Amino acid sequence: MENSLAAESPNRRRSPTAEELRVWRDFVETGDRIRSRLAARLQAESGLSTGDYAVLLALSEAPGRRLRSSELAAAIDWERSRLSHHLGRMEARGLVVREASAHDSRGAEAVLTAAGASQFRRASASHLRAVQELFVEAFVPGGRHDGVGLRPVEEVTGALREHLASMG
Amino acid sequence: MENSLAAESPNRRRSPTAEELRVWRDFVETGDRIRSRLAARLQAESGLSTGDYAVLLALSEAPGRRLRSSELAAAIDWERSRLSHHLGRMEARGLVVREASAHDSRGAEAVLTAAGASQFRRASASHLRAVQELFVEAFVPGGRHDGVGLRPVEEVTGALREHLASMG
Repeated sequence: MENSLAAESPNRRRSPTAEELRVWRDFVETGDRIRSRLAARLQAESGLSTGDYAVLLALSEAPGRRLRSSELAAAIDWERSRLSHHLGRMEARGLVVREASAHDSRGAEAVLTAAGASQFRRASASHLRAVQELFVEAFVPGGRHDGVGLRPVEEVTGALREHLASMG
Repeated sequence: MENSLAAESPNRRRSPTAEELRVWRDFVETGDRIRSRLAARLQAESGLSTGDYAVLLALSEAPGRRLRSSELAAAIDWERSRLSHHLGRMEARGLVVREASAHDSRGAEAVLTAAGASQFRRASASHLRAVQELFVEAFVPGGRHDGVGLRPVEEVTGALREHLASMG
């Protein structure tokens, strides 16, 4: 099918219409709302911030439950200085220890402690139930298939991911 | 159509399947990625953080371009103390001023300055083009209708919003 707009320039410099802007703002606000609900549950049920959880998750999935600071910072997409301060506080709570790297004289490694691993396991079970209740159930209510299903989520996520990758 | 699972309990305590968890993590990561791209553009093109932008947007939409601190904190969903520190830095840059409230002896009001309004206008035009390029174009490429369109975004956002509201 011929598209009458195809002859025009890609028109990349235009701004969103009012309707497009509304969809964008709703998208951001809804994302904020579910994050904030999940963060509040995590703090209340497990005493962990989302930052704590991200660090514990990355370490628990790493070989030997240890990562160099630079790898950990990249894995959770934080600045090194923010991570360093955060790891100090987590170390004081016994969740991680920092050790000089055996492979790299410049870098420290963060290592999950047994207490950290145990707290992460408990927090994780609770957090996954919260993800189920707050996110999955929005699309697949009670495990039944009378919701919209997760297909629209995959469409949205896939379109955004491909688009962002194509923009380099 | 009869649903064989309907007879079971709502099963609200179950955890996500591996597939559901993958969709959830993709959703969060993609959201993080577009926010971080937009934040980097905003900083590079306009010298504003997303926090600056949120404050300027809320004030520019308020009657008389002024809001009590408590109203502003609620509008952008920040803690009062975080907002107070942030407003101090924005005041030093001439973007806002803080005045004692005429209506409330306890509360200060944040007021958009002419310089702040002018910087917000420029930043806003540039930010909206970035929203167009990074978000809208993922679904409606070049303004043409050969993308998936914004309908799946509205489905996802609507399902989440209604679900979160129903959970109180």
